[in-house]
Amino acid sequence: MADHMRFTLDMLSVDRTSGEPMHRQIYGALRRFILDGQIQAQSLLPSTRSLADDLAVSRNTVIAAYEQLLAEGFIEARGGSGTWVAPIQIDRASAPVRAAPTAPRKLSRRGQTIVNGPQPPRNAGVINFHPGVPETASFPFSIWSNLLLRNARRRDESLLGYLQFAGHPGLRQTIATNLGLSRGISCTAEQVIVVTGAQAALDLVARVLTDEGDDAWIEEPGYLGAKSAFLAAGARLAPLKVDRRGWFLSDPDLPPPRLIYVTPSCQWPFGTIMRIEERLQLLDIAARNDAWIVEDDYDGEYRFRGRPVPALRGLDHADRTVYIGSFGKTLIPALRIGYLIVPRELSVAFDKAVSITGQFAPLILQATVNDFIAQGYFATHLKRMRRLYARRQANFIRLCEAHLAEWIEVTENDSGMQLLASFRKPYRDGDVVAAALREGLDVQGISINYHASEPRHGLLLGYTSMDERQILRAVLALRAAFQRLDRDIAATGAHPGAR
Amino acid sequence: MADHMRFTLDMLSVDRTSGEPMHRQIYGALRRFILDGQIQAQSLLPSTRSLADDLAVSRNTVIAAYEQLLAEGFIEARGGSGTWVAPIQIDRASAPVRAAPTAPRKLSRRGQTIVNGPQPPRNAGVINFHPGVPETASFPFSIWSNLLLRNARRRDESLLGYLQFAGHPGLRQTIATNLGLSRGISCTAEQVIVVTGAQAALDLVARVLTDEGDDAWIEEPGYLGAKSAFLAAGARLAPLKVDRRGWFLSDPDLPPPRLIYVTPSCQWPFGTIMRIEERLQLLDIAARNDAWIVEDDYDGEYRFRGRPVPALRGLDHADRTVYIGSFGKTLIPALRIGYLIVPRELSVAFDKAVSITGQFAPLILQATVNDFIAQGYFATHLKRMRRLYARRQANFIRLCEAHLAEWIEVTENDSGMQLLASFRKPYRDGDVVAAALREGLDVQGISINYHASEPRHGLLLGYTSMDERQILRAVLALRAAFQRLDRDIAATGAHPGAR
Repeated sequence: MADHMRFTLDMLSVDRTSGEPMHRQIYGALRRFILDGQIQAQSLLPSTRSLADDLAVSRNTVIAAYEQLLAEGFIEARGGSGTWVAPIQIDRASAPVRAAPTAPRKLSRRGQTIVNGPQPPRNAGVINFHPGVPETASFPFSIWSNLLLRNARRRDESLLGYLQFAGHPGLRQTIATNLGLSRGISCTAEQVIVVTGAQAALDLVARVLTDEGDDAWIEEPGYLGAKSAFLAAGARLAPLKVDRRGWFLSDPDLPPPRLIYVTPSCQWPFGTIMRIEERLQLLDIAARNDAWIVEDDYDGEYRFRGRPVPALRGLDHADRTVYIGSFGKTLIPALRIGYLIVPRELSVAFDKAVSITGQFAPLILQATVNDFIAQGYFATHLKRMRRLYARRQANFIRLCEAHLAEWIEVTENDSGMQLLASFRKPYRDGDVVAAALREGLDVQGISINYHASEPRHGLLLGYTSMDERQILRAVLALRAAFQRLDRDIAATGAHPGAR
Repeated sequence: MADHMRFTLDMLSVDRTSGEPMHRQIYGALRRFILDGQIQAQSLLPSTRSLADDLAVSRNTVIAAYEQLLAEGFIEARGGSGTWVAPIQIDRASAPVRAAPTAPRKLSRRGQTIVNGPQPPRNAGVINFHPGVPETASFPFSIWSNLLLRNARRRDESLLGYLQFAGHPGLRQTIATNLGLSRGISCTAEQVIVVTGAQAALDLVARVLTDEGDDAWIEEPGYLGAKSAFLAAGARLAPLKVDRRGWFLSDPDLPPPRLIYVTPSCQWPFGTIMRIEERLQLLDIAARNDAWIVEDDYDGEYRFRGRPVPALRGLDHADRTVYIGSFGKTLIPALRIGYLIVPRELSVAFDKAVSITGQFAPLILQATVNDFIAQGYFATHLKRMRRLYARRQANFIRLCEAHLAEWIEVTENDSGMQLLASFRKPYRDGDVVAAALREGLDVQGISINYHASEPRHGLLLGYTSMDERQILRAVLALRAAFQRLDRDIAATGAHPGAR
């Protein structure tokens, strides 16, 4: 053995008080010596007996360490001639370069598009008017937990394994049956594809139904999550203009669509319901262009006085509408369970696609949601939430009239979980958002929902998750924000809206 | 009111014994009449008072029905002149065409690629040797359920809401700490991105790090799920040839890679461990080409005698390796929790990407996995499973030698959850799979893992999920399949391998 090797091995010692087994300590030290070049490639190692003697450990301990090094290719046993360090070439690329600054490398262009996709900013840890956030305090956690527990203990093979991609068969059937009743949709269980939330549904649809460069009509203003999904898929977004009265379906600037994305039950962000005439026109446009329709029914279950508006999907006898629903707003968001109703001819394709994109939801949660619906808890919960949200909306409007009438106008809306607030002065909503944040309040402007035209300014205020005390606090914080903004404007002499 | 309208309305009646509220019955009937054209567009409807009298219901009932129709745009109130059916154009595209055969429409080209992606076929309801399926009977369900229940009941806002995309902070930290110990990886919690399983991780990496047409080296033979993910992203797959001895990293036919996908801890399907020399060469190739490495450590935790082989990621001081791990094989598959360790500079990008692809796992399950690990149950379970699988492997090999020696050779392997079985006669594995299915047994051939070259034939046999009785049954079924195949060959005179 070379002197150099002897010198290095002298540094090797085992710590009997350490929790790490001795064979691992020896393995780790030798591995490090070899990688660092302190023990050179192609050199002869001491025999296991000799090293064991040196270290005063049993020979089996050294054998275990050598076997691990052998399995990983660090050393080689050459017949009778002993154990040698393998001919490993260690160059700079792989040798530990301590604190070496790594040059930032590039994402793919698609990765860049995905990462740059618009998402509404959300600030944690402050009171907020985030739209679309359900009340969770009223959720029947003990019932839910018991159902979950039962499924967790069932050890049902069908809940544990890999065979289900498009969803739990019971839940698919329940959704098919339930939607027939509540949303005017007639479909089979096979057409129901369960995925990890509405965003995953949008992503999946965009990838399976559009190619790069395809024209997709997207509501303008419209939901950012949908825009991001279609942009990530490489689609070209054509703005389908919407205002509070309706959809500009006859806009001559629109290209022939490959796909049309709409929120007909409660337009995001205006809250408008699509009229039957518009629905029929939309179906007609889709038929003439052989285009798909994507109906995002993100909170269609929430209508307070009338019954929920039947889904567009229910009118589509040509079977070209993909319906997207979610339990995120009717149960709890962090469940991550959404679903698609796809045309009959596409159900096999979507099942396969989900198996490859990995967007399938945990079966144990799916089974629990199924029990929750089948045993009637879902309907009860929804009914309670409708009443609660109707009360909260009325109270919220009263508070806005009492404390915010100088700055905003809020109109009641029979559907949805958020209200549009119009400004009474020409504010830019970004300035209001910034002023509110300084009062510890997170609000969302509506201008972020525009991507192709001069935005309208205003706020989209979610009131559903807050009790009376919280909502009053939030309203007063918003008032303080407007007062602060007005003082700033008075001080600088310039109205921000005029910038 | 026109006679036609009178005639139609005469068909309208309410059923007081029905569970459906009367206003909904009236709404539903009028909606149907309008959509079917029985009540024509632009016609005057009876007043609410008059219709209420006709139907012998309260006027409020009719008002509720009219309000719903109004909200959906079916009817219009024209000042003092009464209620009119809206000017709706009903054309053939949207009118109910009963039993109309819809022409099958096309998926996008990308959708077609996704749907055509290779996936190993799996047949439910038969005994099987599916590789990579963990034992679930030994899983400590009661401990797990109690942890889950505690999290379900906690009503912790951070488990319910929308603010976490890259994962539960506690779990991310636990993975970072735990992997440092068990897999030789040093990383921060920010580098850990939790997603809905390893397949989602592959899909996400493929989309964020490659563009259409980029060259990705994929092991040949290699894991089908990875191939599908990279194909779906439009990458060109360059076969990185592998045999039981190692990786052909110097193959001159390989193009300069943008990304290299490997399974160094336990090559799929051969079970080979990548030697240190190959690891260093791979890192060097990646450095020279400025390429990413994707290390799929799908069952790296399962090594039976030595300690788990340190991850390639731990050697990569240039921070260009994305590591993929999963709890699917160490806990239960249907959990759908996997994770990536990404280069420091990419953690923000991946967090954002997950928010757009919707591949984030339910926080309640993430929190439960975190508790399970942090409270030591994971380590105990893993240790038990290692011992159990080592015993099962030894028993399985004994059974193969006793009953299957005439047809296959199975070599023990220190890692992984499945063994490679080589044929002793020139069978085609597809024929063996077919013969086995006729005996009620589902097995997987290895030839399906090749995509660019003449495949080797054999079987990849998963033995981990079966107890002694089940495994004997499966081995005997496989024997019967070979006997059946041999009889068929003798009868036809042609050896299927020679076809």
